[in-house]
Amino acid sequence: MNLDQLIKYALEEDAGTGDITTLACVAPDARSTARLVAKESGVLCGLDVFRRVYELIDADVVLTAYKSDGDTLEYGGVIAAVSGLSRAMLTGERVALNLLQHLSGVATRTRNFQAQIGEYPAKVVDTRKTIPGLRALDKYAVRVGGGANHRFNLADGILIKDNHIKAAGGIANAVSRARDLAPFTLKIEVECETLEMVEEALAAGADVIMLDNMPVAMMTAAVKKIRGIAPKTVIEASGNMDTKNLAEVAACGVDVISVGALTHSVKALDISLKFD
Amino acid sequence: MNLDQLIKYALEEDAGTGDITTLACVAPDARSTARLVAKESGVLCGLDVFRRVYELIDADVVLTAYKSDGDTLEYGGVIAAVSGLSRAMLTGERVALNLLQHLSGVATRTRNFQAQIGEYPAKVVDTRKTIPGLRALDKYAVRVGGGANHRFNLADGILIKDNHIKAAGGIANAVSRARDLAPFTLKIEVECETLEMVEEALAAGADVIMLDNMPVAMMTAAVKKIRGIAPKTVIEASGNMDTKNLAEVAACGVDVISVGALTHSVKALDISLKFD
Amino acid sequence: MNLDQLIKYALEEDAGTGDITTLACVAPDARSTARLVAKESGVLCGLDVFRRVYELIDADVVLTAYKSDGDTLEYGGVIAAVSGLSRAMLTGERVALNLLQHLSGVATRTRNFQAQIGEYPAKVVDTRKTIPGLRALDKYAVRVGGGANHRFNLADGILIKDNHIKAAGGIANAVSRARDLAPFTLKIEVECETLEMVEEALAAGADVIMLDNMPVAMMTAAVKKIRGIAPKTVIEASGNMDTKNLAEVAACGVDVISVGALTHSVKALDISLKFD
Amino acid sequence: MNLDQLIKYALEEDAGTGDITTLACVAPDARSTARLVAKESGVLCGLDVFRRVYELIDADVVLTAYKSDGDTLEYGGVIAAVSGLSRAMLTGERVALNLLQHLSGVATRTRNFQAQIGEYPAKVVDTRKTIPGLRALDKYAVRVGGGANHRFNLADGILIKDNHIKAAGGIANAVSRARDLAPFTLKIEVECETLEMVEEALAAGADVIMLDNMPVAMMTAAVKKIRGIAPKTVIEASGNMDTKNLAEVAACGVDVISVGALTHSVKALDISLKFD
Amino acid sequence: MNLDQLIKYALEEDAGTGDITTLACVAPDARSTARLVAKESGVLCGLDVFRRVYELIDADVVLTAYKSDGDTLEYGGVIAAVSGLSRAMLTGERVALNLLQHLSGVATRTRNFQAQIGEYPAKVVDTRKTIPGLRALDKYAVRVGGGANHRFNLADGILIKDNHIKAAGGIANAVSRARDLAPFTLKIEVECETLEMVEEALAAGADVIMLDNMPVAMMTAAVKKIRGIAPKTVIEASGNMDTKNLAEVAACGVDVISVGALTHSVKALDISLKFD
Amino acid sequence: MNLDQLIKYALEEDAGTGDITTLACVAPDARSTARLVAKESGVLCGLDVFRRVYELIDADVVLTAYKSDGDTLEYGGVIAAVSGLSRAMLTGERVALNLLQHLSGVATRTRNFQAQIGEYPAKVVDTRKTIPGLRALDKYAVRVGGGANHRFNLADGILIKDNHIKAAGGIANAVSRARDLAPFTLKIEVECETLEMVEEALAAGADVIMLDNMPVAMMTAAVKKIRGIAPKTVIEASGNMDTKNLAEVAACGVDVISVGALTHSVKALDISLKFD
Repeated sequence: MNLDQLIKYALEEDAGTGDITTLACVAPDARSTARLVAKESGVLCGLDVFRRVYELIDADVVLTAYKSDGDTLEYGGVIAAVSGLSRAMLTGERVALNLLQHLSGVATRTRNFQAQIGEYPAKVVDTRKTIPGLRALDKYAVRVGGGANHRFNLADGILIKDNHIKAAGGIANAVSRARDLAPFTLKIEVECETLEMVEEALAAGADVIMLDNMPVAMMTAAVKKIRGIAPKTVIEASGNMDTKNLAEVAACGVDVISVGALTHSVKALDISLKFD
Repeated sequence: MNLDQLIKYALEEDAGTGDITTLACVAPDARSTARLVAKESGVLCGLDVFRRVYELIDADVVLTAYKSDGDTLEYGGVIAAVSGLSRAMLTGERVALNLLQHLSGVATRTRNFQAQIGEYPAKVVDTRKTIPGLRALDKYAVRVGGGANHRFNLADGILIKDNHIKAAGGIANAVSRARDLAPFTLKIEVECETLEMVEEALAAGADVIMLDNMPVAMMTAAVKKIRGIAPKTVIEASGNMDTKNLAEVAACGVDVISVGALTHSVKALDISLKFD
Repeated sequence: MNLDQLIKYALEEDAGTGDITTLACVAPDARSTARLVAKESGVLCGLDVFRRVYELIDADVVLTAYKSDGDTLEYGGVIAAVSGLSRAMLTGERVALNLLQHLSGVATRTRNFQAQIGEYPAKVVDTRKTIPGLRALDKYAVRVGGGANHRFNLADGILIKDNHIKAAGGIANAVSRARDLAPFTLKIEVECETLEMVEEALAAGADVIMLDNMPVAMMTAAVKKIRGIAPKTVIEASGNMDTKNLAEVAACGVDVISVGALTHSVKALDISLKFD
Repeated sequence: MNLDQLIKYALEEDAGTGDITTLACVAPDARSTARLVAKESGVLCGLDVFRRVYELIDADVVLTAYKSDGDTLEYGGVIAAVSGLSRAMLTGERVALNLLQHLSGVATRTRNFQAQIGEYPAKVVDTRKTIPGLRALDKYAVRVGGGANHRFNLADGILIKDNHIKAAGGIANAVSRARDLAPFTLKIEVECETLEMVEEALAAGADVIMLDNMPVAMMTAAVKKIRGIAPKTVIEASGNMDTKNLAEVAACGVDVISVGALTHSVKALDISLKFD
Repeated sequence: MNLDQLIKYALEEDAGTGDITTLACVAPDARSTARLVAKESGVLCGLDVFRRVYELIDADVVLTAYKSDGDTLEYGGVIAAVSGLSRAMLTGERVALNLLQHLSGVATRTRNFQAQIGEYPAKVVDTRKTIPGLRALDKYAVRVGGGANHRFNLADGILIKDNHIKAAGGIANAVSRARDLAPFTLKIEVECETLEMVEEALAAGADVIMLDNMPVAMMTAAVKKIRGIAPKTVIEASGNMDTKNLAEVAACGVDVISVGALTHSVKALDISLKFD
Repeated sequence: MNLDQLIKYALEEDAGTGDITTLACVAPDARSTARLVAKESGVLCGLDVFRRVYELIDADVVLTAYKSDGDTLEYGGVIAAVSGLSRAMLTGERVALNLLQHLSGVATRTRNFQAQIGEYPAKVVDTRKTIPGLRALDKYAVRVGGGANHRFNLADGILIKDNHIKAAGGIANAVSRARDLAPFTLKIEVECETLEMVEEALAAGADVIMLDNMPVAMMTAAVKKIRGIAPKTVIEASGNMDTKNLAEVAACGVDVISVGALTHSVKALDISLKFD
């Protein structure tokens, strides 16, 4: 499901057999103009998606953008002007706003979390905890908010978790088997809950090591150990990170901090389309 | 996109060209058991969806339910036991949990909002502010949480808003045109921002009247007027209701209170699958 | 399946792996003009569908319309001129005509039935007895023919029939359960075969009452009863209406008369595309 | 779109977001039995399609057939007994009946037309004048009614019509070009309106000759000419055949008589599902 | 799956969640020009497919063709110039070349095989031994290479093989049953391994006779017998024809020689896109 | 398009509107048994795909395997016994064999190429030069033949080619930009044609270095340089490798040798289904 398919699906889901109210009340050739306005402060994300919703309904709807994805929004700020046939503008409004508000919500939270990290080099990254259909868009919103991306799906990254380790009979076996099966273009990550596991992952040649739910002291020790043995290894901190002091986690020296709440618990940003 | 299509899509989106880590580490005939456990308190919703995810991956995964949709969950409560081939259980885990946690989040918030209303007869209802693909499931979750549903899409309800009224040249015209075009099985709702509009809507024979963004005093007056003239009219209160005192709104005597935040700003309920 | 999907499907079904005869005989740049001509009298319906068939094959086919949907056609009347690449015009001819002739057949019969009703206010309405894929188009044709629409599908109207009543344990229970489950924007209709059932439906607060297969005398009595108790209730007459004297039924005072034969037994209107 | 896809589409079209009435009134585990009964005489066709509708809703619905496709039905005759979960039986009833009644209508008319031909060897055949999606089923119904099939689509038969002849510069050219382009497994048919065209088609080596809208005397002469020169040529009579004396046409010695009305103007056979 | 669907599918398969390398390295407005160059000699086929790949990615990519399908290519020959946005040109390159090289490979081999036949009137024809999705394109490439087409699928030709003959109880029965069931527009072909079978097929009135795996002497005898009894019968030679002396087979007087290797064992023609 | 979708598509493409020959000649309840036999020596691949074709036509077809994917086949060797309804077995034969023969062809060639490498540690790997729809299956066949996989698509690997380098303004920039945009789980590969480029790639921290079209002496020097500076870097040899002495290339010390011909120029392995 690419972007156009997602939007078409959303429009069908929302229209059902047709927007009767609009068809009944609005003449086919009536035209409107409207302004897209922020109702609270945050980070804009998804303006091209918003525009595309209208293009797919009626190629003649014109959106003039005053802001771009990544721009900061304040209450009352005008994001864009939209004009076109009134029927198209009314029928597409809800779908276009639903996506824009959701994505701006993701970008806003990402920027807030990244801001907590401050000057540390660590990056906030997303997870696979996304709503069906929105994986790619949500990951785009994370980048717009200043975060970075973890793997997109189960095929473009190898993440060996505790159950994989048990099933394979240890970290060394798991890494070795993954190396045999996977395209050689993928890095291999191992989820570690103890320093012993970190040592095993290093010995197995893991490219990425995840420090899962570790207390800060253990995390600091793990980072030190990894940097001493294989300094180019990527280090990820993970485990209910939205409830933690991200600056303290970042201070441990990790490279990335993965936060499920970036995408599984989104607060839509309040944006509305004001018809003139 | 029915439920099976949504789940298949979600599985494809999450698997990409295949769950390499699991295929590499876990033998094809290895079996696992696991418990589905609440990590915070809330309302369970989506257990059949969770089960269906696994059925569509491997019909032999067995889920034994200890809770049902609508049940209250406490921290640590076991919702179900799951057993089957380890590969299926690991590959489906994320998609199954993403849906279950989202829907339980919707149901939990709905119950909280309905609880604020207390003994008043008003019902919390949803809106069309949903994520593409999840409209039907989200509305189900609202019912599970004790709320009721507004229209599912633009075809199964007529909601005449300000732009429709302007385009049609007044409320009377708008209602009349909608009555001509729409199947006669649909009620006609008019969005009103003033008492004058309420009077016009009543005169036009509206079946439902929405009191949009009205202060409590005006809302009370509007309800009184409507009950005096056409007592069977359904009365809806609307407008950023998640930021209001819902009991105060309900006390005005409205029938339904629509809340966009039920579905546009969901906080996923923390639930995890613990492998034994 | 929206209109474009229906047409694309129809074109694929009709073309198979390609219109070999036309590809063999007609040069790729040959152009033709043709006239769309009525071969019998009736009501035109589906001209935009006809045009869209050609647009989807070749955007350069031009249709100049001399008639509009709803216009009366006489034998020999020219509906439109069509011109474009000969290959496109020949390959699309059958699909375009199949749809136009079917829809004009529906509109023609609807107008005939509505004409039988004469001055009475009752409207002829359709049913769910339609061919798969044509539900929306057939219902459009009914409106073009001067009729009105019953519900489009099982989700945008509630029609409680005898089996629902038995299953729910009576009309009162059935209406009450439907009111709990359904979006509050839908009217509730009850199918009644006796005056007792009409009384029960009224007591339950039904919004619409269907008088099913009632003799004229009973129908008259039922209407009188309903108008006395709940005058705004919509009253529908139903049951093999194509075999009845519609004026006599309308004279009973019902609001709508539903006729399955409008769409389940269509006689295609004879229209042909004459190449110059 | 194969049969299952057609049925699934029809069920989705008819259900919309769900059969609310049935979900509200009927318990999930309630069971029903019903009899499928003819309400007028005709030819049964589509019983497997009817059964398949129910299998796709709920594999546990059981249909016990008392009649088979092609059997003659009389008023009141019981075609089958159906039993299963009441929800499935109610939700699928309309779609299953719509298809069964339509196909039985096609088969009934075909048998009537074939009966008019009596002892002559000519076969009634169908055309491409079918409703989108029903091509294959309608052609099956024609065979069940005792007719035979013309080509299924534009790729599995070559029919050179007047516009093809003009575009190719004569019958000889048209036949020659078609022979070059088409798979050698297809017969080549030429539509002829005069005896001169028949002679040209014979000279070009046509495998099938269509006598289009010829008066009976010309048709007789054409048949005689063809039988004298190329006796194995298939001869088709065509042109508003539903308005003609088919026995008189058959008496001319043609092999097949194509009748568009078999499928473009179907009268659904009255069949209903009686719940016990 | 028509051409556009095939290309869209191929692009999705190749792009996954996006061409990250290009998105990272190439500015959105950067433009490139490139030449499509043959790296070995052969027959060009698929240039419109190549162009369509780019049109579907970005309508602004322009291809200026110097060669047409069917033209002979020599090492280093420039087929076309391509220009447009660099991102589109890089992202579509592999899919466009994969199809062009494959189809040119099919056309090249077909021309080579047809050349072996020399002056004999026999035509090389394809089989159903094609890769899923490429049936229609491969058959087009065979025509471009100078060959002809056998049936496209199991519905547009009747080919009675040994297992059909056994199941039907002999050739006469098989032909008779096929004639009853199939559209009368299709020829009936019988696969024969002996002269006795050829005689039976002739007696049954087969339109096409396949001589399967016959030695040259038997094939010559079979042709003589067929030409003596029913001279218009099409005669096909079949059976590992890529390993045989095609001129010797053609000299037997057959009409068509079917060769599976035309499409099941394609050697892609080496063509590359050279960026300037 | 997963495996089931590919097979369903292939069956639809091959069946068109139905396998008329089989439907006409073979009784619906007739049963057959057959043996799947190798007609030449090679490596078996795709037996589960073959089996799945039949399962999707008729779940009752039973395949008893005597060989497994990866097994060596000799002329006349029996791979499996198949039994079931004759109609299913005949209708699915061609599609099932087309896929099995193609995949066995890929595996056979891969094993031959890997055998040329002999004792050297280098692995033969595939490319993106595959037929639309077969990417995943072809890559599976390469693994079955003893080779390894390069990236599956443009999203699960980063391969910076000359045009990317030019567009980004050098290797350092290109690598840096890719690192910023891509998920951190992917390795970054740079295509190098000179030793200078190899040095730049090393300096930029490339994870994989492709030596493209280098003479053996330069390749040897490049490997030495890379091993001296960053020994864990993966080294790939590329460029018309099917025309080279693979042992000589492997002797340079590279890790993987990518060969487009593994999948773009497949010779189907001759396998047939012999009915008893």
